[in-house]
Amino acid sequence: MPRYALLIAYRGEGFHGWQRQPGLVTVQEVLEDAAAKLNGGIVPTVVAAGRTDSGVHAEGQVAEVEVSSELPPTRLRAALDFHTRPHPLSVRAAAPAPEGWSPRFSARMRHYRYRILNRPARPALEEGQVWHVPQPLDAGAMHRAAQRLLGRHDFSAFRAASCQAKDALRTLDRLDVTREGEEVVIHVSARSFLHHQVRNLAGTLHPVGRGQRGEEWPRAVLDGRDRRAAGQTAPPEGLCLMSVEYDEKLDWQAGPA
Amino acid sequence: MPRYALLIAYRGEGFHGWQRQPGLVTVQEVLEDAAAKLNGGIVPTVVAAGRTDSGVHAEGQVAEVEVSSELPPTRLRAALDFHTRPHPLSVRAAAPAPEGWSPRFSARMRHYRYRILNRPARPALEEGQVWHVPQPLDAGAMHRAAQRLLGRHDFSAFRAASCQAKDALRTLDRLDVTREGEEVVIHVSARSFLHHQVRNLAGTLHPVGRGQRGEEWPRAVLDGRDRRAAGQTAPPEGLCLMSVEYDEKLDWQAGPA
Repeated sequence: MPRYALLIAYRGEGFHGWQRQPGLVTVQEVLEDAAAKLNGGIVPTVVAAGRTDSGVHAEGQVAEVEVSSELPPTRLRAALDFHTRPHPLSVRAAAPAPEGWSPRFSARMRHYRYRILNRPARPALEEGQVWHVPQPLDAGAMHRAAQRLLGRHDFSAFRAASCQAKDALRTLDRLDVTREGEEVVIHVSARSFLHHQVRNLAGTLHPVGRGQRGEEWPRAVLDGRDRRAAGQTAPPEGLCLMSVEYDEKLDWQAGPA
Repeated sequence: MPRYALLIAYRGEGFHGWQRQPGLVTVQEVLEDAAAKLNGGIVPTVVAAGRTDSGVHAEGQVAEVEVSSELPPTRLRAALDFHTRPHPLSVRAAAPAPEGWSPRFSARMRHYRYRILNRPARPALEEGQVWHVPQPLDAGAMHRAAQRLLGRHDFSAFRAASCQAKDALRTLDRLDVTREGEEVVIHVSARSFLHHQVRNLAGTLHPVGRGQRGEEWPRAVLDGRDRRAAGQTAPPEGLCLMSVEYDEKLDWQAGPA
């Protein structure tokens, strides 16, 4: 059966995360039910690069779907974009899945963004897409602290209790903290992440930004490998899966509508 | 009684526009009811620079409120930001109102932005904040057509039937159309606007972008002064009041929270 890659965006607050759960609206369920309409009613399994948590957004999630007959990718995209209405989800592009490719296991790099609205006033237009921190944050101090976490380490201190990965060894390739006007934006990249790793990193850089902890503290937390020593898990609504990189070249097709 | 200027942001979909209307949630009502809590229960009148329509957003609306006793602007800001919960509105800053200043009549320049999401896939994270146009738009052609509308003209062709202004003579200072990735963004500036003027301008540039009309067409519509000859009124959700300029220097204060 023909397999396709899908490039997907969604708003986290519209779903109880990626993974199918009985009685809850999830991204996987909405996509699988939409794909079933192109599949003679048979519900296919849709696999994603990142199984985002409840409330986490995506601009560039990548998924794979198998359908019963071959379709031009643009028609598949338009049909899935239509059948996933009215959920806050958009099927941005589709591509034929390369032989042997997996959205999850072939991923070479995952890029996430974490947005902090750093101003006294609460969010308005940004509501649901930022963590609101009203007290001033020193983005420079956060960035310097973050640089000490780069590279290959045991990230046990930044791992959720629920994390099912076999080990906590991961390679952090990018952890940049920059101020963009009233926002402090964290860009994080790695081949793969532990459960809650990005939110725990954001929550541990936060007290450095507030001046409550020194720039050396997050590295000491890392070295201690004790989750209880780390900062809070930052709220999901600031997090967005921006893009996923593969060695395989995916021939993304979007238009015509 | 002491008067204060307020810098306000809000999401249009949370309100039936700015102006108080019986039985409907409006920005004016939410702000006035919040201010009444600082005013011994007496509801003051809050006046705005731009009486935005239902669905139209603001990043930098400016309003004026009179309260019964003097307050540090930061305390007024924090109290109004709190008492307007849970509406999608943020009181970003407050300043003492200069003598003789009016948010509406002293405005020297108003800056609006109109966002078009120009891709086949429907909006996800941008939902409610863009006009979705799935067919390709030529932003360059739209921009060149727009430049012919700059300056002082009778804008009767771009005026809503409901417009209450005495005449349609306005000076358009900026009408820039630029492509930013998948978005076509229109930046418009003028001292003042007619009712629906920006949305009618966007709706008249749209067929130029589609290639259905030539670059000279919007100017011909302007010269004809006939509303029926213009394009559609673009939907409100793409529009946002970005900022308002005054000759008076406003001493905006935001923090501490």
